[in-house]
Amino acid sequence: MRSREESLTPVTVIGLGLMGQALAGAFLRAGHPTTVWNRTAAKADQLVAEGAKLADSVKDAVAASPLVVICVTDHDAVHRLRESIADVLDGKVLVNLTSGTSQEARETAEWAAERGAGCLAGAIMSIPQQIGTAESLILYSGPRSAFELHEASLRNLGEGAMYLSDDHGLASLYAGAGVSLVWSILNGFLYGAALLGTAGVDASTFDPFAQQYIATMSGLLSGYAQQIDEGSYPAPDATIDTHVAAMNLLAHESESLGVNAELPKFFKTLAGRAIAEGHGGDGYAAMIELFRKPSPVKA
Amino acid sequence: MRSREESLTPVTVIGLGLMGQALAGAFLRAGHPTTVWNRTAAKADQLVAEGAKLADSVKDAVAASPLVVICVTDHDAVHRLRESIADVLDGKVLVNLTSGTSQEARETAEWAAERGAGCLAGAIMSIPQQIGTAESLILYSGPRSAFELHEASLRNLGEGAMYLSDDHGLASLYAGAGVSLVWSILNGFLYGAALLGTAGVDASTFDPFAQQYIATMSGLLSGYAQQIDEGSYPAPDATIDTHVAAMNLLAHESESLGVNAELPKFFKTLAGRAIAEGHGGDGYAAMIELFRKPSPVKA
Ligand SMILES: NC(=O)c1ccc[n+]([C@@H]2O[C@H](COP(=O)([O-])OP(=O)(O)OC[C@H]3O[C@@H](n4cnc5c(N)ncnc54)[C@H](OP(=O)(O)O)[C@@H]3O)[C@@H](O)[C@H]2O)c1
Ligand SMILES: NC(=O)c1ccc[n+]([C@@H]2O[C@H](COP(=O)([O-])OP(=O)(O)OC[C@H]3O[C@@H](n4cnc5c(N)ncnc54)[C@H](OP(=O)(O)O)[C@@H]3O)[C@@H](O)[C@H]2O)c1
Repeated sequence: MRSREESLTPVTVIGLGLMGQALAGAFLRAGHPTTVWNRTAAKADQLVAEGAKLADSVKDAVAASPLVVICVTDHDAVHRLRESIADVLDGKVLVNLTSGTSQEARETAEWAAERGAGCLAGAIMSIPQQIGTAESLILYSGPRSAFELHEASLRNLGEGAMYLSDDHGLASLYAGAGVSLVWSILNGFLYGAALLGTAGVDASTFDPFAQQYIATMSGLLSGYAQQIDEGSYPAPDATIDTHVAAMNLLAHESESLGVNAELPKFFKTLAGRAIAEGHGGDGYAAMIELFRKPSPVKA
Repeated sequence: MRSREESLTPVTVIGLGLMGQALAGAFLRAGHPTTVWNRTAAKADQLVAEGAKLADSVKDAVAASPLVVICVTDHDAVHRLRESIADVLDGKVLVNLTSGTSQEARETAEWAAERGAGCLAGAIMSIPQQIGTAESLILYSGPRSAFELHEASLRNLGEGAMYLSDDHGLASLYAGAGVSLVWSILNGFLYGAALLGTAGVDASTFDPFAQQYIATMSGLLSGYAQQIDEGSYPAPDATIDTHVAAMNLLAHESESLGVNAELPKFFKTLAGRAIAEGHGGDGYAAMIELFRKPSPVKA
């Protein structure tokens, strides 16, 4: 046991909220010598009982390990901690797992690089209970060398450690693209369940149909992606005009059944705008041009 | 060949638009004696060349076969044809493949039943090019006996003939639930592609990540369905409060990158309303209660 611990990279975890505690716990259970720090020290008690070392200051915590993970509320909280640790960053790898925008991730990485630290910007796509398990997914961006140097340690936070790019902003952007798919699917499913519920169909009956439909749809995305990358949007299936007619029908159906019609109406507003811009005869992929532009200012 | 044709049910197809021509063509190629009718007779020329019989009137067309498929623009067009065929419906099975609302489907089915016809209400989830192939999916609702009597013939329109329920409204409702998932996924994907496009990631690079994400998400729907059916929405993963914080972050990210922020903002509006109704601490499935109610009237 002792020899195994000695062979693993010492790590530091800054921020012991729900997520930070899960991260430090996973490192500890994997056998990493683990130093922790939290603004409210009491949150370290359980981890200390499990073998973590509580540092006296955030500066001491960072100084203790070559690999430093920071996971606090937001970019603002990272900012407040920065000056305290600036002097001890040289030669470290700082892994910033705090949620934020791509710009915030790039800014912290630049700041760390100026102080001699490598920086990985991560996005945690899992809940605390999944950390350290096969279900966890954490996206990383930043220098590939820093990821590879610490990959084995980072995989102790969960098998799903995915390296994306040397652009520090990408973990956040992929995370945003990922969660927007989550909300899209959840809203579509809940709306469908509400619609079918009016005829006494329960959600568990709808579920296998929905899953089959989603799988079919997902298989068609590669074709849409190719059209987007080529910038041409032929419609061998349905044109945006056809889609809007069906959206209208569904909005009308929803209203007459007394279920919330906002989803089909929202789709109609977006697609209607693409038609106004001349894309009525194109396939749905042409909507990318609308998504690429700022939202129209409300009149 | 002759003996095979004679063993197949004679069919009639009313309406020879893009879809009607595909339907009649598939019946013909499968060997069904096929009678057709269209308001504009010229659209039958190609089918007649392939062996279809063009009826002189819609009434003669219906009288010609025990199985009658109607596929015209909308419910209104069906309505206009109804009186002409009322006298010859007795003993027929009328398959209404015209898109419409659940109420419209039920209304036509009732009208047909009063005239002695069995009626199946269908929803075509495919494009004309897919009709008659393994990729076609057509949903049917109405008396199971009528479906089973003509199942073999209907499968000649495509292997994917799915019987749902004796409620004639269900094909339309399932179709609505299905397409709302399609638009949900497409919009989520296009928005994600636009977001990642700002960092030079192309859509084909995003595609496998998106597909993996969608598959993971799809696998979680059964759990959400169970919560919906039980009417309780614990949040072992993320609460609606947590989701809204992430939606805010993404709206902010989108705006600062100059991409369309309407998708995360729309999600935020919906979820924010659920919070206002006291569901902030619940899991996302609680949003079903919002989808079940009519859209709020704009102030
Ligand atoms: N929980 C999840 O399911 C989940 C999933 C994916 C991503 N994340 C991300 O992980 C990060 C942490 O989330 P969490 O769930 O651990 O949040 P949390 O439980 O609210 O914990 C927040 C942590 O940030 C610290 N903090 C806040 N402001 C600070 C400041 N000015 N100076 C020093 N420390 C400060 C808090 O210290 P105190 O204890 O002293 O308040 C606490 O340790 C967030 O960016 C979140 O978006 C979380
Ligand atoms: N095309 C698709 O990809 C697709 C996919 C799924 C479902 N559908 C549904 O299939 C149905 C037909 O679509 P389609 O693509 O074939 O449309 P279409 O090409 O526009 O054809 C419409 C057909 O309806 C007939 N019609 C319209 N009003 C009529 C009236 N008052 N009396 C008699 N006939 C009338 C037209 O006759 P004329 O030739 O005389 O105008 C024509 O045969 C629609 O409900 C559509 O939503 C289509």
